[in-house]
Amino acid sequence: MHTESPIGIFDSGIGGLTVVKAVQAALPSEQIIYFGDTARVPYGTKSQVTIRKYASEDTAILMRYQPKLIIVACNTVSALALDVVEKSCSNIPVIGVLKAGAELAVQVTRNNRIGVIGTQATVSSNAYARAINHLDSEIEVLSQACPLFVPFAEEGFIDHPATKLIADEYLAELRSQGIDTLVLGCTHYPILRRVIAETLGPNIRIIDSAEAVALRTRDLLSESGKLNTSRKTPAPHLLVSDLPQKFSMLYQLFMGSELPDVELVEV
Amino acid sequence: MHTESPIGIFDSGIGGLTVVKAVQAALPSEQIIYFGDTARVPYGTKSQVTIRKYASEDTAILMRYQPKLIIVACNTVSALALDVVEKSCSNIPVIGVLKAGAELAVQVTRNNRIGVIGTQATVSSNAYARAINHLDSEIEVLSQACPLFVPFAEEGFIDHPATKLIADEYLAELRSQGIDTLVLGCTHYPILRRVIAETLGPNIRIIDSAEAVALRTRDLLSESGKLNTSRKTPAPHLLVSDLPQKFSMLYQLFMGSELPDVELVEV
Repeated sequence: MHTESPIGIFDSGIGGLTVVKAVQAALPSEQIIYFGDTARVPYGTKSQVTIRKYASEDTAILMRYQPKLIIVACNTVSALALDVVEKSCSNIPVIGVLKAGAELAVQVTRNNRIGVIGTQATVSSNAYARAINHLDSEIEVLSQACPLFVPFAEEGFIDHPATKLIADEYLAELRSQGIDTLVLGCTHYPILRRVIAETLGPNIRIIDSAEAVALRTRDLLSESGKLNTSRKTPAPHLLVSDLPQKFSMLYQLFMGSELPDVELVEV
Repeated sequence: MHTESPIGIFDSGIGGLTVVKAVQAALPSEQIIYFGDTARVPYGTKSQVTIRKYASEDTAILMRYQPKLIIVACNTVSALALDVVEKSCSNIPVIGVLKAGAELAVQVTRNNRIGVIGTQATVSSNAYARAINHLDSEIEVLSQACPLFVPFAEEGFIDHPATKLIADEYLAELRSQGIDTLVLGCTHYPILRRVIAETLGPNIRIIDSAEAVALRTRDLLSESGKLNTSRKTPAPHLLVSDLPQKFSMLYQLFMGSELPDVELVEV
């Protein structure tokens, strides 16, 4: 692996583009290869067996590009199949959004009460609680699945009264439990950050796992002398397993820029 | 094919169970083989190429059981890939929910203004309008995609104020356009029938494509002398490509009964 080798990033769909955006901001000289498994999205409602199979196939697709590091942008895969990814790419470092988000939350909390929101699969796996308590066993972790947040984000229902109603319902218990930090444990949720922040009030700090993983990636490449220090700012190379009608609209929603060329790969 | 041969039914996921329920009610002696592609659900947000590939694979799974008839319970496949299904099973009759729903709507309308709601893929395909106008070119068809209805139904948000808000928004234009008939062009929508009916008011007749396809199936088997006239009422044989945690809860929501044995098949 050379400093010029790309960073591979994958997700179940388009949500991982929030990670691409954060990594680009932190490391503008790095070439990013992104694979979004848009033919089989979402993963968060599927079984562990299926999620692990898909994780192995997704990793194999990125490995064709000989990346120097792989970022698992999918919280569900980070929670249930990070070992599968590690096994499928032998000695390349793997960073999952989950661990990066957990580490940042532990640094930030003052009252040792951290909330985590995510898909049903991520929350049921209890993986955030395990990762946080591995770092500090004194911290209490309170979790809530918010399955409707993904379709709301994808449909662009960002400021809608129905989104606020659902946010009130999903977040009421976390608010009453006195958390001071909330981890957005799904790559779609930053799209709804404003309504989530409004619902939680000003005293709860929100941790975006996409930003956390970008910082962690910069540290790791820097420590291992693998940072790309060229002055170029390459466009990300995008691979998807399906190209639905709405893709261009979703790309704009997540990246805030026009869709570049996209390559279709078979899964 | 014998009268004892099963009826094969497939859908992108669990939504097609509304069709299983309707067929069981209309034809209690028939053996039903149901395949739900829960590993790749949903289809409605994916591209035509991917939907056609999945339709061919789903048909091949049912063909292992030598059915006497195949029902495409998925509106998206009915709209975009019915010819693929027909090609994959040569001389067995194929009935799609879409055509059955269109036929019933044409019989029912008095003012020749029919509304259709469905997924983005179904609505964009314009297939309901084509099927209806093929039967009667004088009828005006008005369509509306309601993509959030599927996640609302699957999360059991049936009587929730947020569901009513979204229904108001999705259905406002159809109401103002003076339709007298609305086709539920997605197998999930019968779950939300009450809120849809409330929003439309008492003067719009709702057509459930699941019921329409069951009636069409009975007619077709009867005409061809293939009705199973035994007194047995066999339980449906269920095949799925994934068995997520929520499956049992969803089965109860759609079928109103406890989950029977389910067989996992690879796709």
